[in-house]
Amino acid sequence: MILFVDMDEVMADTYGAHIEIYNKEFKECLTVEACMGREVWHTVPEDRQASVRNHARNRGFFRNLKPMADSQEVLRELNKKYEVHIASAAMQFPNSLEEKSEWLDEHFPFIPWQQRILCGHKHILNGDILIDDRSYNLEGFKGRSLLFTSPHNINVSGFERVDSWIEVGQRLL
Amino acid sequence: MILFVDMDEVMADTYGAHIEIYNKEFKECLTVEACMGREVWHTVPEDRQASVRNHARNRGFFRNLKPMADSQEVLRELNKKYEVHIASAAMQFPNSLEEKSEWLDEHFPFIPWQQRILCGHKHILNGDILIDDRSYNLEGFKGRSLLFTSPHNINVSGFERVDSWIEVGQRLL
Repeated sequence: MILFVDMDEVMADTYGAHIEIYNKEFKECLTVEACMGREVWHTVPEDRQASVRNHARNRGFFRNLKPMADSQEVLRELNKKYEVHIASAAMQFPNSLEEKSEWLDEHFPFIPWQQRILCGHKHILNGDILIDDRSYNLEGFKGRSLLFTSPHNINVSGFERVDSWIEVGQRLL
Repeated sequence: MILFVDMDEVMADTYGAHIEIYNKEFKECLTVEACMGREVWHTVPEDRQASVRNHARNRGFFRNLKPMADSQEVLRELNKKYEVHIASAAMQFPNSLEEKSEWLDEHFPFIPWQQRILCGHKHILNGDILIDDRSYNLEGFKGRSLLFTSPHNINVSGFERVDSWIEVGQRLL
């Protein structure tokens, strides 16, 4: 059984990073609760949106993300039961490619390079299960799709939803 | 119809680069003809093999490769007829990831990031045709497999073989 796992907002906490950078730059107190139902850039005043949208193009952004709670422990177990492949639509941000490789080396060293995919469209993936926070990635996938809850997708319906890595473990282990 | 195309030794001339670097470093006159049936590193004296095997880990190696003859013209036409995705098993060399993205931007700008995949194992690819120089990549692929002739694979049999991009065009256009 091949299990694909998305990185941003599934394994790596991008909301936390966006909010931290934004609060530091503009001396604000934005919280993740304020972003519910939206992207971070969509939550801030219009004249600051371009700044937030550019975070991901800065060197170091992806390298310094925090792993999502319990992702390491659960993925270590999933990797014993499934053929796990990390699948990130990273080609949009060329600066992220090497950082994502290094980040996986640091936080998920039990998933070797043979099981890592940096791609564009995900409908080219051939496997059994995909865990992703973006409905457009899940829609084109032919296997079982799990929508990983993220602030931007709380109002999305029509998918099997998982709210945390503990819940992923309960369903798949 | 989804068509996957490998990069090294299919779109990009790695033998030419290995030989050029080796000849410069050791003041030799190695030719591609001398490498027939073998990898470049396997063709040189044993005490120089490690040096050749390390070429790919040097910054700039992948960025400076020459496109294979006729690859740009034929892929431009294939991209109109097929859904072309570039698929390179690049995760082994993290230094290559951004260089490969930049190289594609320069030489194949008509193939956008949505159609680029840097991966490990290629059996996770879901599509109709794969052009690759490595038999182990073609073996795990469920669609039509085209073995692109490269010095190292001239003695490999059991695959539909294409000797050049002109021949790829004749078969697929």
